[in-house]
Amino acid sequence: MFNKTHTKYIQSLHHKKFRDENGVFIAEGPKVVLELLETREFVCQQLFAVNEWLVENDKTLKKYSGAEIFVLKDFELEKISLLTTANHVLAVFKKKTPAEPVNIKGKITLVLDTIQDPGNLGTIIRTADWFGIENIVCSPACADMYNPKVVQSTMGSLARVNIFYADLNVWLKKNGSIKKYAAALHGKNISSLKAVKEAIIIIGNEGKGISDTIMNAVDEKITIPKIGEAESLNAAVATGIILAAVR
Amino acid sequence: MFNKTHTKYIQSLHHKKFRDENGVFIAEGPKVVLELLETREFVCQQLFAVNEWLVENDKTLKKYSGAEIFVLKDFELEKISLLTTANHVLAVFKKKTPAEPVNIKGKITLVLDTIQDPGNLGTIIRTADWFGIENIVCSPACADMYNPKVVQSTMGSLARVNIFYADLNVWLKKNGSIKKYAAALHGKNISSLKAVKEAIIIIGNEGKGISDTIMNAVDEKITIPKIGEAESLNAAVATGIILAAVR
Repeated sequence: MFNKTHTKYIQSLHHKKFRDENGVFIAEGPKVVLELLETREFVCQQLFAVNEWLVENDKTLKKYSGAEIFVLKDFELEKISLLTTANHVLAVFKKKTPAEPVNIKGKITLVLDTIQDPGNLGTIIRTADWFGIENIVCSPACADMYNPKVVQSTMGSLARVNIFYADLNVWLKKNGSIKKYAAALHGKNISSLKAVKEAIIIIGNEGKGISDTIMNAVDEKITIPKIGEAESLNAAVATGIILAAVR
Repeated sequence: MFNKTHTKYIQSLHHKKFRDENGVFIAEGPKVVLELLETREFVCQQLFAVNEWLVENDKTLKKYSGAEIFVLKDFELEKISLLTTANHVLAVFKKKTPAEPVNIKGKITLVLDTIQDPGNLGTIIRTADWFGIENIVCSPACADMYNPKVVQSTMGSLARVNIFYADLNVWLKKNGSIKKYAAALHGKNISSLKAVKEAIIIIGNEGKGISDTIMNAVDEKITIPKIGEAESLNAAVATGIILAAVR
């Protein structure tokens, strides 16, 4: 039976501290939850859903999930939901063991330096998935990939892109043989990326760009030519334009 | 003197109804407020700021603004702010009279069909500004351009792009001589846009894409080639990639 202890538990998972302690995260809404179930990348521990949704997805649930299932009334789901309007289902998944990207030769790898906005990080993960990027390496100051807002804005792509947090200076040095490009306000036109098949592409913080020590490790600065007046582009939009130029 | 009436007034402006009634909107934070002041596209009626910020920007304020100025304590600014952390200044600006885009021959014009998320709309406006797009035509079901979250995510570009709300069926018919492209999941590769100098580019709703009646008016569907698995791209990211392909 669904009770107050569950409500408290789920609310605690809005905070990184408790997600880390319990090794779990939450995902909401039919689209994201079903994608996470279907890819089987994450083990589902608990499903809190309205009866209608459970009936509708009975077959999928039988096939994929060993989760504890709770049937909730709408007002109960509202209580545990972070969304403006609760959306049929909320699930608790186990986090994965982080896997350092190996074998990135011949591939495009994305490196994020302090992407702090959860919506931006989630959208970048979704965009990377669209363009077939396998690995993203995040600096420790990036938003937490398991932040509910990140999970939500990945739209399920969280299961398909490998995300790894690392000290970027150390990680970049380790992968010294691969050419490193930095998105910057001044540099070579991104059209020069066209024939690139292997690269590490570094995207910087929303306000401050790429930090100096990271910039020192970069082989080439690339830029998206500006025609108008905006001072900068949103980090996720810039990532999308750069990945489209490479692909 | 700053008082409760001001607090109530500003809180009311979080809602479209009251923004429309008063013909004003709010903007927050040094970056956005200064850009809106400096472009002089919008008349500033009131400035609520901490003393430190007012002293720092004394010259700019003298040059640009005839606004009523209120010196607030931090806790007072917190009360009226919509941001997670209040950021030095909040301003009330007068809305502009909407101007229907004329003379769009030889230009790229963006049309948005039901972009509902304020963050997406704001980011699209900022991206359009980066690529020198002069006009955006929004369907009435789009988010309100004066929604505080839209204003915030334009980062000041609101003053440099002309935004017009219209019945898209009527407006597109009126501009029948200009070729219309629709962003879609299946269509011609966006690389075919490279030499295009004049176009109306239509971006659809975050979940449902472009509505059928609008799609009927389209001359060509264009698509961003997918390599990975994500089901779709974020609307603002897709807009950025398409505009980069045109420019």
